[in-house]
Amino acid sequence: MNFQELLKKRRSIRNFQKKEVPIEVITDIIKEACLAPSARHSQPWRFSVITHKDTIKRLSDESKKNILAGIAVNPDSPHKAYEAAMHNERFNVFWNAPCLVFIYGPKKHDYLDCDCALAAAYLMFAATERGLGTCWIGLGSHIENPELRKEIGLTEDDRIVAPIIIGYPKSIPEPRDRAEPEVVFISS
Amino acid sequence: MNFQELLKKRRSIRNFQKKEVPIEVITDIIKEACLAPSARHSQPWRFSVITHKDTIKRLSDESKKNILAGIAVNPDSPHKAYEAAMHNERFNVFWNAPCLVFIYGPKKHDYLDCDCALAAAYLMFAATERGLGTCWIGLGSHIENPELRKEIGLTEDDRIVAPIIIGYPKSIPEPRDRAEPEVVFISS
Repeated sequence: MNFQELLKKRRSIRNFQKKEVPIEVITDIIKEACLAPSARHSQPWRFSVITHKDTIKRLSDESKKNILAGIAVNPDSPHKAYEAAMHNERFNVFWNAPCLVFIYGPKKHDYLDCDCALAAAYLMFAATERGLGTCWIGLGSHIENPELRKEIGLTEDDRIVAPIIIGYPKSIPEPRDRAEPEVVFISS
Repeated sequence: MNFQELLKKRRSIRNFQKKEVPIEVITDIIKEACLAPSARHSQPWRFSVITHKDTIKRLSDESKKNILAGIAVNPDSPHKAYEAAMHNERFNVFWNAPCLVFIYGPKKHDYLDCDCALAAAYLMFAATERGLGTCWIGLGSHIENPELRKEIGLTEDDRIVAPIIIGYPKSIPEPRDRAEPEVVFISS
């Protein structure tokens, strides 16, 4: 698939076919994600791939609980707009996707967000090229329970940067409108 | 160009032909960068495109000065390894590239790093597709002088996330080795 097609087809997908994503496909995609550049070639990213439905549900519940706790402490939280959804027991922040990939690394790494986001961009393109759909789920990163963190491979020193859901899309929506780029030119 | 080729050709390039990058090409690339996803579709990114050689030199000097000041305050700084280069008057952190693009946005935005890094990944692929080379210059983001910031379009409230140099590569080096991906699978 050429890049122009990829640009059109890489949409945020939240509606998936009931079809598993083969683990070999995920492994290939992650390999390509690791071709992203990183600060000082440090490659701080690690990955957890969760296809176990009940675990995904528990991760969703954990994240929702912590987001609600955050809103209670800070009513100006940008999550305030999602408060009703967070209270809805039937709402799964991971949209019942068949596969969830967490990209994370040591929280003390000074470029962790940027490096993991670069790997995430690569991962989303690599998935799109294979007919898969993805969505970065910001609401899914609030995993604090120590046992649950351990269960999915996170240490105390790690921070989740990118929770990405992956699956075969039911359909690919049209791109959402974009703002005109704001660009300043300094050419002379 | 297909994605597999892009993956191979997107290398960090620090050695450029003496050839200008047409402003229309940069404009197209930035348009494609803005197709990146962003948290809550907020598109916090803005861009400054600098092709003026003297301005690029002054930005390099400013960044080097501030990095050295940072090392003086914190000898454990990850920049310590670059101290000698920062003292070298002839070293331009932007590698004498013909074009420098800063991607930045409001520092209070809670996903600024991730969103700008996603746009940067798109920008680097879009440039590669057009035969251009890029490199993310972490050492180039330390621009604090208020007049210089103003000159390139930054307000006090902005933070530079990604300084990307762009130009036609003299050659495309082989990929550097990558560590084997560290992946945890939770499938049952």
